[in-house]
Formats: sequence, C-alpha cells, structure tokens
Amino acid sequence: MIDRPDTRKPEWTPPDAGAEFASRVVSGVNPGASPKTVKSGISSVDTGVLVAGILAGNRTMLARAITIIESNSLKHFEQGQELIRQLLPRSGKSIRIGITGTPGVGKSTFIEAFGTWLISKGFKVAVLAVDPSSTLSRGSILGDKTRMEKLSVDPRSFIRPSPSGGVLGGVARKTRETIILCEAAGYDVILIETVGVGQSETTVRSMVDFFLLMQIAGAGDELQGIKKGIMELADLVVVNKADGDNVSRAELTRAELKNALHYIRHATPGWTTTALSCSALSSAGIPEIWTQISKFSTLTQSSGYFEERRHAQTSQWFEALLNEALLARYYSDQNFITELKHAREAISKGEVPVVMAVSRILDSLKPCPD
Amino acid sequence: MIDRPDTRKPEWTPPDAGAEFASRVVSGVNPGASPKTVKSGISSVDTGVLVAGILAGNRTMLARAITIIESNSLKHFEQGQELIRQLLPRSGKSIRIGITGTPGVGKSTFIEAFGTWLISKGFKVAVLAVDPSSTLSRGSILGDKTRMEKLSVDPRSFIRPSPSGGVLGGVARKTRETIILCEAAGYDVILIETVGVGQSETTVRSMVDFFLLMQIAGAGDELQGIKKGIMELADLVVVNKADGDNVSRAELTRAELKNALHYIRHATPGWTTTALSCSALSSAGIPEIWTQISKFSTLTQSSGYFEERRHAQTSQWFEALLNEALLARYYSDQNFITELKHAREAISKGEVPVVMAVSRILDSLKPCPD
Repeated sequence: MIDRPDTRKPEWTPPDAGAEFASRVVSGVNPGASPKTVKSGISSVDTGVLVAGILAGNRTMLARAITIIESNSLKHFEQGQELIRQLLPRSGKSIRIGITGTPGVGKSTFIEAFGTWLISKGFKVAVLAVDPSSTLSRGSILGDKTRMEKLSVDPRSFIRPSPSGGVLGGVARKTRETIILCEAAGYDVILIETVGVGQSETTVRSMVDFFLLMQIAGAGDELQGIKKGIMELADLVVVNKADGDNVSRAELTRAELKNALHYIRHATPGWTTTALSCSALSSAGIPEIWTQISKFSTLTQSSGYFEERRHAQTSQWFEALLNEALLARYYSDQNFITELKHAREAISKGEVPVVMAVSRILDSLKPCPD
Repeated sequence: MIDRPDTRKPEWTPPDAGAEFASRVVSGVNPGASPKTVKSGISSVDTGVLVAGILAGNRTMLARAITIIESNSLKHFEQGQELIRQLLPRSGKSIRIGITGTPGVGKSTFIEAFGTWLISKGFKVAVLAVDPSSTLSRGSILGDKTRMEKLSVDPRSFIRPSPSGGVLGGVARKTRETIILCEAAGYDVILIETVGVGQSETTVRSMVDFFLLMQIAGAGDELQGIKKGIMELADLVVVNKADGDNVSRAELTRAELKNALHYIRHATPGWTTTALSCSALSSAGIPEIWTQISKFSTLTQSSGYFEERRHAQTSQWFEALLNEALLARYYSDQNFITELKHAREAISKGEVPVVMAVSRILDSLKPCPD
C-alpha cells in the first residue's frame, strides 16, 4: 500500500531525520553499536521465523524484529531491510494517528484512556513514540509503559518507547519501519506520540494519516504558547483535562481554538479541522474523538486522498533520504570540509559573493560522478 | 554588511531558485544565451568603469551592470561576480522591503504612490521585481514602468522589471545580486514586488528586512483567498483601495485581519505585525505605513536583529545554493538517472523498502569524492 510515488507538490516539509543513517551504512561505517541496542543473539533469529511470527501476531517476534530495525549495526541493518521487504505487501491496513502536545497536557494518560477504549471496541492498538532528542546514552522519554498501566498489560496492545537516535540511525526512519512491522502484525490503530521538540511534529505529520494536537485549558489563552505553524498540521485539536473545576475553562479554550481555526488553512483538503474537549481521567469525550477520526477516514478513503497522501509521504521520504545521503558523501570528505570552511569565512568577511564562493567550491571537486 | 554567517536555526525555508545556475555555470555548460539578454558590447564596458559609475550613482552604469548580472553567458557571469565582489563592501545601507499581494490588489499603484512619497522625503528609491514565472521567451510582468508613470521619470528612482529565469539563472539569484548593486549606487529604500506564484513570497521574504502583505477589502472575508502561511511572513498587512465607497468595507477587512493576526506567530521576534489601510489613489495612509517601517527599522537595528537576519539570509542562501549545485552533479548523470528511475518504480510497486532503495543507489555510485 505504501508504494506508488506521487509527483504532486509536497504538502509538508520532507522529514530530514534518518538520512545520515543511509549514507553511513552504505559507506560501511559502523562506529560500534552500544550494548543497549545490539543485544547478542538478536540476529540469530531467522528472518523467515520472524516474518511468520509477525504475520501470526506474535508480540515477542514483533518486539525482536523492531529491535533489529533499531539496531545500529550493519548486519542488523541488512536483516531489518529484508524483514521490511517481505512484510511490506502485508502492511498499510491501519489508521496511523499522530498525537502531539507540550509536556503536561496529558498525552500518556490520554493514550492510556483512548487505547483502552479502542481495545474495548475490538481494535488492536500499537503505541509508538518519536522523540528526536533521545540518544543512546539518555534513553527515551516517551511511550513509557509505566504511565500506561492498563494498556501495557493488555494482549491486544503493543507499546514501544521511542528508539534512540543513535549514530547510524534516525528516530524517524526507525519509526516509519516499525509502523510497517506493526501493521503486518495486525494492529489496526497505530498511535504515534511526540512532543514539540525541533521538527518532531512535522516529522510525525509526514508519517501519519491523522494528526491530533492536544492542548489544555488556560494554556490556550490568546493562544500564547502554541508553536508557530502547529495548528496547520492538525486534523483535530483536543482540549484535555476537561474535568472537575476545569470544565468551563476547558470549554472556553476549546471555543477560542475553534475560532482560531477559522483563520488557518487546514491540514487535509476537504476536511474541516475542529476543536473538541475531553477528560482522559474520566474518558468523557473519547468516543467523540474516535467519531471524528472515523469520519475523517471514511471521507479521505472515498475521496482517494488517504492513499494519495500515503504515496506522497513515501515518495517524499525516499527523495529526502536520497538527497541527504548524496550530500553526506561530500560533507564527509576532508578536502570539501576545508574548502567549505574557507568559503564560509570569505562570505563572512564580505570578501567573496555567495555565487562566486559556490562556484569555487565546485571547481575544487574532482570531476564526479560523470 | 551582508556577510558573517549565522549558525542559528533557519527562520525561513532557504530559497531554492538560482541553484541550477551555479552548477551549470561551473560545469561549463553554456547552452547559448538568447539575443534578448546577451546584447553585444555589454561586457565591453570595463569593470572598473562600471564600479566607479555605480558608486557615483550613475543610473546608466547601474542598468548596464544589472544587465551583466542578468545575462546567461559565462563571460558575463565572471564579470558580474567581479562587480559584486568589488561593490559588496559598499552595499547594505538600505532598508529592503518586500511587497506581495495577489494581482488586482494594486501593488504597482501603491509602489508608485509610496515611492513618490519617499522621494519627496529625500530618499532614493529602487524598485525591483521577482516573478519566478518569467522566462526568456515571455519576459517579465512585474515592475512595469508604464504603470509607475511619475516614479519612472524621477531621477531619484530606479525601476527594474523582473529578470527572466533563463537557463543558467534563477530570478532569486539575479535579484539578490541586483540589490547589492542598487545599494552601492546609493539607493536607501529597495522595494521588491512579487506575486503569490509558487514559492515567490518565501523567496522574497528571504532577501528582505521588512515584508508587506497587501490585501483589498472584501477579498479578506473569512480570510478566504489568503494563501496558507503567508500571514506568518508579514511584518505589516495593508488593506489597499480604502477610498470612495470602499472606506468602510476596507476598515472592516482591516479589523478582521488584525484579529486574525492575534492567532498567528509573527515574522520578526519582538515586532507585532499589525494591519493598516491605505489608498494608493489618494495617498491616504501612506505616511502611517512608513511610520511602521521606520519603527520596525529602529527597533530591530537597536536589538541587533536587523543585522542578525541579514547574516542568516546570506548564510542560508549560500548553503542552499551549494547543496543544490552538489546534487545537480548527480542528477545530471545518466547512470544515476537510470538507477533513480528503477528505484522509484520498485518503491511504487512496494517491492523495495525506501531505505533499501536508497542504499542500492548509493552502492551504484563510483567512490567519489573521496
């Protein structure tokens, strides 16, 4: 399903994470993976066994395969790619939902409540996380199972914290590939949680069908604190913590956000982004959120936009990754680095015009690739 | 002045036009310039004579130098770059103002009125245009002297229509370089007109200090017809044609736009973008627009943001141009093109995962540059 490239104008900025990865892998650089991600024996599981296990919905096999995807070693890279190649035709049959909001809006509590509700309706739910700031040493902060107590023990759910960026990997690349594995394992709803760090919302928007922006009452006054451009990414804005004494304040914020949405072009053609309120604590408002998502799904599937967007996402990812990898070949060359440093200095001093500086760098390159 | 590179996070998308230029020039491709832009004898004017003439404020010499900048021949490219190199230290002492708005809002009439008013206050005004859709064959549609009757005959003004894109050139590159020449010739206010074609507003925003979005009454109802993201680029929104029967409607639109601006993060840190109305016909509101621009200039100069933004703009332009030129070396190679075609097809059919496809293309390349 995630296939046909689409030549339309990109709707979002192509994701940039994960690019360094490809170039380094291909240039054969393996800077020694950390013990955390490269457990011995991972690759001793046969690819065929993993594929069969995943297709049978075996969560242990799924978790092992994801560990291979997340590994930074070259051997695992190759097995991971082969896994994806074999599972690609069985992927795509889910709705991919991105969830963002600044820390404190209650994303984890919401996912716990929403996920549990979805399972009660017969869905299988996977929860992934994208935290671009997570590193090998620091570990990930999102998708924390301890904050999703009910959901994490339910056999119809699968929770995976954010992968670490790592030396060879990008969080975005790993998450995109994990989505494919989860879909092949039969998960119908993929929830992808992120926070407003760097370009993380844009990255997640570029891999999901539906994007939910979570806010809380008060924080929305005059819409201060809403990151520039973030409303334009959303297919639904949800004001959380509409409970107890907070209900009327949440309603005010919801009304204000809904008003603001009049002034903003919406993320999905033909779909009107609106604002709802909910209480992750009491689960009030959860069914209404799912109703919106279902309506969205029906509408975009029948208009063909659902598939169109997925194709565009895959195509844009490919082009962005390829260009980053191609550029990385120059930017890792010592002569180029030296020339670049000189050019930047000359431009900085106003000694050389920009175009002349570019021209000089190109002149310094060997005649390649032709 | 336009020098020191800035390592801060880019504030705008780097401009993409003009990149093809550098790569083609450097690879020595000169596909035969058109008779329109390469007039015989242009380069017979000595560079030193041109530089002296421009510094003396000679408009004929300025026009000749711009023609060299706009030429698509390799010989003129070299002379143009040398001209800019010599004039760079004498540039930068102006306020660069971008003006955008869909056709029919009265940009040319406004520039005529605004420019004439500025001249009456003792300024020297240059009017440039950025029309990315202009080609060698079609000519340019903006900066038309016939629509600026008073301004075009005033010796304190200089009007130059949009350069054509051309085979070796990008409109954006030519305009950036023309700004430098105009500043060296002593123009204090540079007005750069553009329309909402493609990325033209983003391109112009990336080369100006102040960005003015022009609207008209009625067109702003419910803010329909305002291009997504365009309000975020503006330092001032002006409702034009506030004259005759139209005054109250213009005021309504102005109020609505001002309200909408509450919900949008503004383009310049520390500066509140607001909405004014004016009549280019009667010149009502023109002084108030200049008051806003003066306030902006004072504020950003004292905060240091004015210089910071210019440095960032130059630096981002350099990096974007360089990357495009580097990529162009691959994308012009026949083997690469073939590999890319196969990869796109395989991804399209769901046969090969994205990362595997990138990896295979990189494997097919010769080991270069290192």
